[in-house]
Amino acid sequence: MSIEKLQTHLNKIACYRSAAALLQWDLETGMPVGAATHRADTLGELTRHILSLFLSARTERLLDRAEKEIRSPEERSLVTTIRREWARARKIPIPLQVRMSRETAAASLIWRQALEENDFKRFAPALNRIIHLSRETARHWGYDSHPYDALLDRWEPGLTTRSLEALIQPLQAYQTRLLERLDQGRHPDAGILKGRFPQKAQETLNTALLETIGFDFNAGRVDTSRHPFSLSVSPGDIRVTTRYRENDFTYSFFSAAHEGGHALYEQGIPPSLYMGEDNGASMGIHESQSRFWENVICRGRAFWVHFYPALEKRFPIFRNRSMDTFWRSINRVHRSLIRTEADEVTYNLHIILRYRLEKELIAGILKTAGLPDRWREETDTLLGLVPATDQMGVLQDIHWSAGAFGYFPSYMLGNLYAAQWDHHIRREIPDLSQLLEQGRMDVPLSWLRERIHRWGKSLLPGQLTIQATGEPLNPGYYMDYLCKKFGQVYQTILPRPGNRDRSTDRKNR
Amino acid sequence: MSIEKLQTHLNKIACYRSAAALLQWDLETGMPVGAATHRADTLGELTRHILSLFLSARTERLLDRAEKEIRSPEERSLVTTIRREWARARKIPIPLQVRMSRETAAASLIWRQALEENDFKRFAPALNRIIHLSRETARHWGYDSHPYDALLDRWEPGLTTRSLEALIQPLQAYQTRLLERLDQGRHPDAGILKGRFPQKAQETLNTALLETIGFDFNAGRVDTSRHPFSLSVSPGDIRVTTRYRENDFTYSFFSAAHEGGHALYEQGIPPSLYMGEDNGASMGIHESQSRFWENVICRGRAFWVHFYPALEKRFPIFRNRSMDTFWRSINRVHRSLIRTEADEVTYNLHIILRYRLEKELIAGILKTAGLPDRWREETDTLLGLVPATDQMGVLQDIHWSAGAFGYFPSYMLGNLYAAQWDHHIRREIPDLSQLLEQGRMDVPLSWLRERIHRWGKSLLPGQLTIQATGEPLNPGYYMDYLCKKFGQVYQTILPRPGNRDRSTDRKNR
Repeated sequence: MSIEKLQTHLNKIACYRSAAALLQWDLETGMPVGAATHRADTLGELTRHILSLFLSARTERLLDRAEKEIRSPEERSLVTTIRREWARARKIPIPLQVRMSRETAAASLIWRQALEENDFKRFAPALNRIIHLSRETARHWGYDSHPYDALLDRWEPGLTTRSLEALIQPLQAYQTRLLERLDQGRHPDAGILKGRFPQKAQETLNTALLETIGFDFNAGRVDTSRHPFSLSVSPGDIRVTTRYRENDFTYSFFSAAHEGGHALYEQGIPPSLYMGEDNGASMGIHESQSRFWENVICRGRAFWVHFYPALEKRFPIFRNRSMDTFWRSINRVHRSLIRTEADEVTYNLHIILRYRLEKELIAGILKTAGLPDRWREETDTLLGLVPATDQMGVLQDIHWSAGAFGYFPSYMLGNLYAAQWDHHIRREIPDLSQLLEQGRMDVPLSWLRERIHRWGKSLLPGQLTIQATGEPLNPGYYMDYLCKKFGQVYQTILPRPGNRDRSTDRKNR
Repeated sequence: MSIEKLQTHLNKIACYRSAAALLQWDLETGMPVGAATHRADTLGELTRHILSLFLSARTERLLDRAEKEIRSPEERSLVTTIRREWARARKIPIPLQVRMSRETAAASLIWRQALEENDFKRFAPALNRIIHLSRETARHWGYDSHPYDALLDRWEPGLTTRSLEALIQPLQAYQTRLLERLDQGRHPDAGILKGRFPQKAQETLNTALLETIGFDFNAGRVDTSRHPFSLSVSPGDIRVTTRYRENDFTYSFFSAAHEGGHALYEQGIPPSLYMGEDNGASMGIHESQSRFWENVICRGRAFWVHFYPALEKRFPIFRNRSMDTFWRSINRVHRSLIRTEADEVTYNLHIILRYRLEKELIAGILKTAGLPDRWREETDTLLGLVPATDQMGVLQDIHWSAGAFGYFPSYMLGNLYAAQWDHHIRREIPDLSQLLEQGRMDVPLSWLRERIHRWGKSLLPGQLTIQATGEPLNPGYYMDYLCKKFGQVYQTILPRPGNRDRSTDRKNR
């Protein structure tokens, strides 16, 4: 009885969360600019209302009672999850959360204009306010050694600056080493990907892609937005967005695969575990789904054995290329400026860049006004490039306007988790490649549904990883994956991870 | 001070109204079917919350205090309007309104499916529930002689079955007489309107149309939906929808003009008077705006003198027609089955049909199961036609699925009001036609902004009409308008209203 009462109470809150999610989706996809102020007011008011319902004495009382009447492991996991979310949310004063919600609703439009006009100064005041609010939020959440830890923990429970540094060190070393090595050889020809690809035909191709990987169009939809995203409006309503370039279909295609991966996760989470826009175990786990489908599957050779005819049908230009040439081209490694378009070898370097800058901003070492210079400096250090404009640099990502400090490392974790899932799926299903070549994308999807999706937020990412693979997160799988895949793409033998550095490592201990 | 407090309180309620409006817009434009149940829950919960805030003791207290401190005529009008809305809303128990909101959210999807599958039986149970809820609602609102009066009053304060019958009698007689007379002559050739009109080009044309009449795209947008509508999501965010047929551009064009007219009204209402989805004095006044732009302006000759080159540019096929031939074709009068496509002479007959059936349904004389037969019978009586399918008959309108019983007469009133505005605008601005020929649509728009729009809901429709034109609603203007316009379209002299019937009228007195 008590658990039913708790669920009725949460279902009511879920209605407001669903309304807020739709308002957010609309803000990013098509809201007229004239609505900006009222929309910010509305999102602020909904945030206030959702929190005042969720953090009410009633929730606590219902939780206390439900905990005494647990009848099954499912109920225990549900109640524990709610208790954890509740305990976490109540640390931040409601007015602070409302202020953040209003600031970010307004900042999202300012950022969009600043990006279009390549004008960082226009964005700086709003960004500065969001940094201050983020710092204040970190203080309320609490941390042991660095305020940034609190922000990391928000997206990835348990992640700290220290544990992140430990992951970054070998990854940065190995990925930089791979990059330098590949730069010495012959790159696949990216020119063969160029052509005229009308948006309408790209939309049809994206639909075919999403259907192939298992996206349920009765429980979701696809739209266009400046910055692609995916979002749960409610159970049965998971939305993804993409954007188009008519001279490069891969721009939209792989972003659709990425967001489609997020959506498959949300579509696989039971409605009873719906908590709002994101219902995964952590954002690292969430990004493991998007990066898995985008890269491991859809940039994999087996996928294209199956899907290449569908591409040829929409874009006959590809009848003149071999599938293998095409596959190598979509995996070309090169130093570039835009994170979302980066290849798998350089991608984490883009994340490390953002991580370093965010840490300095939150610590107050770096001022908002100094960001564009620091961005250029650090891009040079990591990638050997300097962006000519802020559009191609510090203004490229939506995350800061949305107050998502501490989020970027989730992408790196996503890459690592994805390689770990891939390793274990292949160990359990040795003929996976042949199945994928036959279009059996349902095989990895079923594995993910069973091991990841159906648990929603009810397990912590560490627990989930051990339950799914029998071991904690192990970044070695990602390095092994890069070594093997890019050896094939570049038709060469690449240095194995750790080989060169092992002696140094030992010395350092 | 008290008025500011009242406004702060109402602004908060407006946030939830805005969220509900967006959820409704989304439901009609693109929500995945899998979200249906959750969406109905969400709309129900928002309705409950909005009403519990608006009907709270706090609203009453703030109203009482504000009434004692009124400092200006604007404040008086604002407070009076809120008091009236409040007094009206509190007559219906909140649970009944929530039930209605949930039923209609679900019924809207069922209706859409039933329409697509031409299956009235599929829609009947939901419709039946809505009829019962409407009857119950009428009982709570109260009425003198007929329960349908309560539903009429909801959309048009002061309208009763009796006053409506008094309008219908001469209109039905005169419009039927015109129809019979025109049927004896030679009709304009509608065939010249046929062709291939790609949706994309139609969208561009609709944008040009909306820009021409003054729609502000920074404060609104245009989408596609099964049944066209317009809706205020918030101040600065007024949305219209349309739909397309690629062999007939007029299908979309005049529906865009119609919804554009509604949107111009909402865009002209001051944000301080924002109350939710519709902020006009009444739905009759609202429909006067849509019908004015759709018919009086956009089916008028002067508009096409200006706009015909824009049409020729998008659809070169029209270079082979004369503008006058085209103008006569878009005004062809004929007996037809679909209300939204009916010409101005037969349109009110479609309304009379719906009015008669609704009155019988609400009185309980007609059962839901008997509706399709009654529809066919009455269409035959009024228009001399019998629809072969329910798709072309009883299932064609969205209104009943939305619980909007009593709404249809608003369209008839809209026609009458629109002709009255037109008469008075022309009296005040004798060279209006020449100005319209020059593209000066801002001239009638300014008149409407000043006399109608800026008052929002703060005047009752009767007060507004007298203030705007110096006299109450006078249906003679519409009949005069039809007589003059269709005389020109058909190049003939038509009987003047009332002429033949005057002697009979005298006898009857």
